[in-house]
Amino acid sequence: MPDPSTRAAALDQLADMLGPRLNRSQSDRELHGRSEGHFPLMPPDAVAYPENTAEVAEIVQICARAGLPLIGWGTGTSLEGHALAPQGGVTVDFTRMDKVLQVMPEDMIAVIQPGVTREALNTELRATGLFFPVDPGANASLGGMASTRASGTTAVRYGTMRANVLALEVVLADGRIIRTGTSAPKSSTGYDLTGLFVGSEGTLGLITELTLKLHGQPEAVSAAVCAFDDMAGAVDAVIATIQSGIPMARIEFVDQASAAAFNAQSQAGWDDAPHLMVEFHGSEAGVAEQAARFGEIATDFGGSGFRWASKPEERTALWAMRHNAYRAMLAANPGAAPITTDICVPISRLAEAVEETAREIADSGIPGPIVGHVGDGNFHALLLPQADDAAQWEVAQKLAANMAERALRLGGTVSGEHGIGMGKMKYMQAEHGEAWQVMRAIKSALDPEGLMNPGKLLSGN
Amino acid sequence: MPDPSTRAAALDQLADMLGPRLNRSQSDRELHGRSEGHFPLMPPDAVAYPENTAEVAEIVQICARAGLPLIGWGTGTSLEGHALAPQGGVTVDFTRMDKVLQVMPEDMIAVIQPGVTREALNTELRATGLFFPVDPGANASLGGMASTRASGTTAVRYGTMRANVLALEVVLADGRIIRTGTSAPKSSTGYDLTGLFVGSEGTLGLITELTLKLHGQPEAVSAAVCAFDDMAGAVDAVIATIQSGIPMARIEFVDQASAAAFNAQSQAGWDDAPHLMVEFHGSEAGVAEQAARFGEIATDFGGSGFRWASKPEERTALWAMRHNAYRAMLAANPGAAPITTDICVPISRLAEAVEETAREIADSGIPGPIVGHVGDGNFHALLLPQADDAAQWEVAQKLAANMAERALRLGGTVSGEHGIGMGKMKYMQAEHGEAWQVMRAIKSALDPEGLMNPGKLLSGN
Repeated sequence: MPDPSTRAAALDQLADMLGPRLNRSQSDRELHGRSEGHFPLMPPDAVAYPENTAEVAEIVQICARAGLPLIGWGTGTSLEGHALAPQGGVTVDFTRMDKVLQVMPEDMIAVIQPGVTREALNTELRATGLFFPVDPGANASLGGMASTRASGTTAVRYGTMRANVLALEVVLADGRIIRTGTSAPKSSTGYDLTGLFVGSEGTLGLITELTLKLHGQPEAVSAAVCAFDDMAGAVDAVIATIQSGIPMARIEFVDQASAAAFNAQSQAGWDDAPHLMVEFHGSEAGVAEQAARFGEIATDFGGSGFRWASKPEERTALWAMRHNAYRAMLAANPGAAPITTDICVPISRLAEAVEETAREIADSGIPGPIVGHVGDGNFHALLLPQADDAAQWEVAQKLAANMAERALRLGGTVSGEHGIGMGKMKYMQAEHGEAWQVMRAIKSALDPEGLMNPGKLLSGN
Repeated sequence: MPDPSTRAAALDQLADMLGPRLNRSQSDRELHGRSEGHFPLMPPDAVAYPENTAEVAEIVQICARAGLPLIGWGTGTSLEGHALAPQGGVTVDFTRMDKVLQVMPEDMIAVIQPGVTREALNTELRATGLFFPVDPGANASLGGMASTRASGTTAVRYGTMRANVLALEVVLADGRIIRTGTSAPKSSTGYDLTGLFVGSEGTLGLITELTLKLHGQPEAVSAAVCAFDDMAGAVDAVIATIQSGIPMARIEFVDQASAAAFNAQSQAGWDDAPHLMVEFHGSEAGVAEQAARFGEIATDFGGSGFRWASKPEERTALWAMRHNAYRAMLAANPGAAPITTDICVPISRLAEAVEETAREIADSGIPGPIVGHVGDGNFHALLLPQADDAAQWEVAQKLAANMAERALRLGGTVSGEHGIGMGKMKYMQAEHGEAWQVMRAIKSALDPEGLMNPGKLLSGN
């Protein structure tokens, strides 16, 4: 830990370099010291707003010399405290690096700066017939989505960020700028550094440019909602659907409590029951065939009351409701301090995982609506203990820990898409064992001083 | 470098442990000192045949103490000298670790030992309705395919080994055994170590178990061959097909010289012209729709003389011919010393890349038939200088170097699927720049003594 005067001198140097684009105000520091999760305030010493890669490299060099931590910031929508500054330092806010640099429609790729949000990218792509499919709900920055290996509702069809980032530019802990990957669709030339940086949560370097894979806008899209008699029927329908090979574009589970929250928030008019929300992409004939096959399976498992949304505005409203589930549930539970969970299991164990979880939550008396990207075996319980009730908080923490343990017992993972950040480090040893030490060895090799997003993903750094 | 007596003692210790499963005979050493490529003999000191992970770990520990290099061996079909032993040491031959440990049809995954070949796995899967799609041509071991990040004819649809390995067990350079990944379809819990080991060519550890993603056997399959007036028409048809979004299962380019070799070797009866070989997977209706759309595009670009292969045995014969292209071309060029090439470019630059390459080869007077997984922008020229003609060899080397330079200039990569091994290290700096140093830093962190497959992928190790 360098002495305070060294840190102060480095901040002055950054201020000289960036002018008003280094913000040391309490308000901006506190804005960047909060997260969507349940973490206390952990502000940085300053917030830098670079405009290009060279500036990022210079910021990193100045901070490295002074031993100042560096934390990347996209839109602040991560859920596990990824962008907090527990050791202070400089938060590098990519808001001003928000350019779509190049779209190559023939190669179905786009080169962008990390501050571009997924909605901004898709708006820009609209006229090309292409789109970027990964959709975690929040209008997150793509640099942040890459850093947390985000996924969401469409991963069942299009994959996660792992599958959709082709190449990166990264500023390393010593200020070196590297490029990983090429614009070719595949490569076999050495370690997959692109894949290593995707999901590394800013602990190995700061992503300053991304080359993303795009997909053709489907000729036809159709979406539907259907109600089920019970949770088991809905989950079993998902399993049967995935195993049947229907190329679902989305297949989302929503439990009864969540449906009630949707009704309260959006006048959705849904039945008081668990639901599946599904979407099909393809040719007109293909979508019709997929929808018919899904309909048969759903009916077999007690699905009924299909509501189809074939107009774009109906679908937008539908998925907006799903994306707002978090807020709808908070609104339905005033005074609650939310704990998000995010487990993912093999599809064959999904019913077991969801049912055990639901039963345990029901027994606890704490609200805990369940939604999930169940086509991937991934689901979330939003645990909602009252903020002023320490006993409920304890119980909710235990429920979350039990979910993590359950995921591992069933061959799964403690995070399907939210990542580790500060919130899930406690489960890393259990999930990875000795492999966590291998992650640490890589971290030490690339960031020996431990300045890149310290206190995240790897304990003791 | 440890002294010879230390090495000898370690080999004796291995012999005590493995009995006849440590082979020090000259014949077996030489068998493991040769490769499919154009490299001189580089035999190991001994060949070990472990039967389980614990034995592999023990072999590694013994070798590590004595400073003996360790080289993994699957089927010896790699093309860039990956499994040669330039510094001697112990080749770990996985032939006896060839069990399919578990097939989980509901989760569409299989857990296997590294010595299982892709054909053996698919034979075992036949009754499940599932298959493993990655098909590099050779009946390679899946451990080897993971290590080189292999791909082949079906990657255009199903992805490379990067997309189809879900989890690994790896023995590290110090004998520690780690597990990377889980059986869940996705995860967001830290560095993607699975992705790091896939394509690491045995330089970071030895893969001792793989969890692979399986795919449903398509309800309907149809394949076809069609001739084109010229190379440009065939390549442009590929580009248009990929951009149209037809989900091709295979789309392979074969030039006129290759077609002639097929005719000579297999009495294929093809026209004396460039061809595309294509395959469609899907429902009956889907395959028919895809085939019709492809047919229209091909016809637009001068394709004609379609030959359809809808019976399984016809398709098997067709793809066997494609897989034997290498041997057919060698047979057509007696006395030649083959140099394989393997560049991959963005699809928009494919025509340019193929045409420049073909023109330069034609000008050189050296035979150099071109085939390619062109749906991925990946193609190979098999350069065939006469073995006893040093001048031709020089020219061919220059042609290969120009291809690599061309790939990089067009935004691509010097290897789409064959990997680096010993043969392509000379291009790593040009492709990766400073990122190659990052690979070296990772290597040093995980294998500080440089014992895992030394002399490959990273220079100076």
